Amino acid sequence: MKKIADDILNKVISSRPIISYKGSFGRVITIGGNEEYGGAIIMATNAAVHAGAGLVTCATSKINVTALHAQLPEAMFIDYTDTTKLNQAITKSNVVVIGPGLGTTAQSLAILKTTIAALSANHFIIVDGSAITLLAKNRNLLSQLKIANVIFTPHEMEWQRLSGIPIPNQDIKSNQSKQESLSANVVLKKYHTEIYHTNGSISQLSIGGPYMSTGGMGDTLTGIIAAFLCQFKQVSTSDRIDAAVYIHSAVASSLATQKYVVLPSDIIAELQHYMLISQKK
Amino acid sequence: MKKIADDILNKVISSRPIISYKGSFGRVITIGGNEEYGGAIIMATNAAVHAGAGLVTCATSKINVTALHAQLPEAMFIDYTDTTKLNQAITKSNVVVIGPGLGTTAQSLAILKTTIAALSANHFIIVDGSAITLLAKNRNLLSQLKIANVIFTPHEMEWQRLSGIPIPNQDIKSNQSKQESLSANVVLKKYHTEIYHTNGSISQLSIGGPYMSTGGMGDTLTGIIAAFLCQFKQVSTSDRIDAAVYIHSAVASSLATQKYVVLPSDIIAELQHYMLISQKK
Amino acid sequence: MKKIADDILNKVISSRPIISYKGSFGRVITIGGNEEYGGAIIMATNAAVHAGAGLVTCATSKINVTALHAQLPEAMFIDYTDTTKLNQAITKSNVVVIGPGLGTTAQSLAILKTTIAALSANHFIIVDGSAITLLAKNRNLLSQLKIANVIFTPHEMEWQRLSGIPIPNQDIKSNQSKQESLSANVVLKKYHTEIYHTNGSISQLSIGGPYMSTGGMGDTLTGIIAAFLCQFKQVSTSDRIDAAVYIHSAVASSLATQKYVVLPSDIIAELQHYMLISQKK
Amino acid sequence: MKKIADDILNKVISSRPIISYKGSFGRVITIGGNEEYGGAIIMATNAAVHAGAGLVTCATSKINVTALHAQLPEAMFIDYTDTTKLNQAITKSNVVVIGPGLGTTAQSLAILKTTIAALSANHFIIVDGSAITLLAKNRNLLSQLKIANVIFTPHEMEWQRLSGIPIPNQDIKSNQSKQESLSANVVLKKYHTEIYHTNGSISQLSIGGPYMSTGGMGDTLTGIIAAFLCQFKQVSTSDRIDAAVYIHSAVASSLATQKYVVLPSDIIAELQHYMLISQKK
Repeated sequence: MKKIADDILNKVISSRPIISYKGSFGRVITIGGNEEYGGAIIMATNAAVHAGAGLVTCATSKINVTALHAQLPEAMFIDYTDTTKLNQAITKSNVVVIGPGLGTTAQSLAILKTTIAALSANHFIIVDGSAITLLAKNRNLLSQLKIANVIFTPHEMEWQRLSGIPIPNQDIKSNQSKQESLSANVVLKKYHTEIYHTNGSISQLSIGGPYMSTGGMGDTLTGIIAAFLCQFKQVSTSDRIDAAVYIHSAVASSLATQKYVVLPSDIIAELQHYMLISQKK
Repeated sequence: MKKIADDILNKVISSRPIISYKGSFGRVITIGGNEEYGGAIIMATNAAVHAGAGLVTCATSKINVTALHAQLPEAMFIDYTDTTKLNQAITKSNVVVIGPGLGTTAQSLAILKTTIAALSANHFIIVDGSAITLLAKNRNLLSQLKIANVIFTPHEMEWQRLSGIPIPNQDIKSNQSKQESLSANVVLKKYHTEIYHTNGSISQLSIGGPYMSTGGMGDTLTGIIAAFLCQFKQVSTSDRIDAAVYIHSAVASSLATQKYVVLPSDIIAELQHYMLISQKK
Repeated sequence: MKKIADDILNKVISSRPIISYKGSFGRVITIGGNEEYGGAIIMATNAAVHAGAGLVTCATSKINVTALHAQLPEAMFIDYTDTTKLNQAITKSNVVVIGPGLGTTAQSLAILKTTIAALSANHFIIVDGSAITLLAKNRNLLSQLKIANVIFTPHEMEWQRLSGIPIPNQDIKSNQSKQESLSANVVLKKYHTEIYHTNGSISQLSIGGPYMSTGGMGDTLTGIIAAFLCQFKQVSTSDRIDAAVYIHSAVASSLATQKYVVLPSDIIAELQHYMLISQKK
Repeated sequence: MKKIADDILNKVISSRPIISYKGSFGRVITIGGNEEYGGAIIMATNAAVHAGAGLVTCATSKINVTALHAQLPEAMFIDYTDTTKLNQAITKSNVVVIGPGLGTTAQSLAILKTTIAALSANHFIIVDGSAITLLAKNRNLLSQLKIANVIFTPHEMEWQRLSGIPIPNQDIKSNQSKQESLSANVVLKKYHTEIYHTNGSISQLSIGGPYMSTGGMGDTLTGIIAAFLCQFKQVSTSDRIDAAVYIHSAVASSLATQKYVVLPSDIIAELQHYMLISQKK
């Protein structure tokens, strides 16, 4: 198991080609945010925009459109209950984030099914939060998901639900075995987060701290991973994921010299600057 | 009566354990904000998030969800008229704030009753503003409230309503006697705020100033108290309350070197930084 | 005609009494903001809060409540079509602002009538924008208005409508004669704004500049005047008005060293700081 | 083909006349922002306000009014489906922006038709995004548009649709020939944007970079062009357009020393300062 070191950022965050268009840096669609957890998908969307994704669409409950646009006019919106539009928007996207604030109702499940049905082999899909819980309960969807490049981002309890491995037994060997059977990358969020890649490598985070223990951190991470997958195609998928996970904590660690607790919104606001200085270092 | 000194912050605001989760720092639910006073519960919620509570849910009128998420995507929302969800959310919380912007209508009273019925012996509940007024008029609810750890945060007129002691007669002995019969902590907000603790001690604030005399200050205080009760379990309840009351004025005092009047939003924005430097001092 | 000098701020912006409450600094109600011009009343309200009014309520179209609370949770809201609540809120207020974004429809007129009917001799009322236009067309309301302390804040075209004096003929003598018959203070907004006071004095502004020629400036001024009338009761009404008009341009002038055009939101954000340094100078 | 040099800003951004009114700096109306792309018209509007237009009205879907006012109370709103009001507002405006987030539905087309029908010979109209696509499909509208001073702001694909010239064949001669037949200015957005003026001159941008390749950049540019057309009437239309295009990239380039990707909101926030220092240089 390899510790992710600071040089991952320098390796992954490359200079943008001089001649480029917003399309050059990919299209992300973020799917989630029901009537109660709208903030979660807003943070994911905001992180994707600030981390450099070319175009970002947020598919969420109609109740969330104003809060989204009030702080992030850069994002587009679709009503996630409009199946036709959701399907079209996924088809046009390179990276899908599903889960932040999605909930676990019948409607949430229907949206997850529509999403999975729209995936192709070229898609990346980041599956987080309640989408993981829904998949744990709807095993038949798991195999359909395999058509795409999948990144699960569970915390330990969600991983227990998905993998069937109780938290105390979540050792490297068991985790990797399960990850292989899922044919997916797994970002297991915990103290010293572990990342199990489909290429067989395992990475571990050794930065970050308890100033990050606050609601919305995981939602924010999904947006950063999405943006990194979109942009940095010159490096491997595993490096892109590792760099996204690393920068999320590196920014927080940097801000923790000024703040007792670091909020997701603080990290989002600092991403553009931190990406620049990481590239230059 | 003990003056609260600056060292209360150093004593209470401890380093977070290296291995911790958002759940380690508690769940707060803030209840209030009717169709007219939505700002009050938003400020309370915002203060709780910035003061480090692990997870914060705002139970308010549906009209307030967008204004909440537009400035604070970190918070979750529930419609406070949904009795089932409100009850569930309270059950899962460690600290309840009720009152900011709640109003005094029949609906407000119904929400207060639902809240009190959902309390257990493990709960902390901070009772502020219109919730105090409602309790003063509905004495039967007062005894039901005693099941939990109660903190009342009245200003002098609200204390008159609740205690029956006219403002001119609100001396220490009378206040303490009434506080004891309420089996609750009382934060009596006034020039040099007095805090009557259930352990029999009395503390007094000697900082703060007239730059804090502006709408929303009390709402903001409730959120800070809630976050401190959640997080700093290694010290006594009375120390946590004293520290929360102290930091609220200490931050304002610090900002008053730059501003003629200090707004609640200014205090909220500075909390994370002030908590860090207070810890380090 | 006296030029308002910088020392007006030092004279008016006094230290707050050590023992004070939000009620000590007055209650402002701002009335306006229809379905199209909601921003106008939000700026007036925001200025009143930042300029130190103790408690501020915004009476506006229901469509504006979320935009108000998203940026200013410190303010309270009432639906301006709820006549009973509007009447109660005015009765409890010290200073009324009416006009920013009010419009000139039948509904606007009805709200103006309700407002005037609720005034007492103790009220200050600042009449701006479309409320001036409405009064110019509804002369019978003008005499009812006289019960209160009135401040009109017309620009030259509005003054032409209200006074009947064509812009080219708006000389000092004609203006003062009309102002006397109105029994009101008149802040005639123009290049080098003129202020005609009910005490017979006339003041003139000699600061400010074309960087202030942008939408919303006048709305912002009404909120500052309201806050100054509320707070600084130790000086005359004329001094309070002069100081409010002066600081509005002084802040803009200060910001114009950094910005080609100065927006109302920029001025609002700087008010607290500028009031502090003006007091200390 | 002339490279636009830095001195264009110094030439165009003049000192404002000492005696001036918001009306002196023109009225802009921005038209667009359907239920999904509200952010686009908000960014255009925000850019127009920050770039110094005197009065700015945003005609958009009613769903966007709160997000607009939450971040920009300086702008006015009208419902773009209210044909009467839209027509009146256009008549009163000097510069019209149409297209950002407008969409390509029957409703979008109806709004475009209403807009074109309201134009006079004195109007400037900036036609962007989906409005270009609509015009490419509705050729009869193109000739009606010629009554006004037209500025098209297509990217290469939109130019292909409008001009019929495939992207690989978009050479200077072909572009200019088509631009002449359109009797319009064409800002062809690409790597080193080209501007074809109605006076026969062609300008080219040689600044900017891939940090600008993110959603919303073009929307923001329309607002800046609108504000520059409104204000700087002492120079030619072609200089005003060149300066607006230049400053958009110059601000981004300046911010790119601090940020890996520069967002439209970042550019908007810096415009007032950059205009000041450009004027002074």
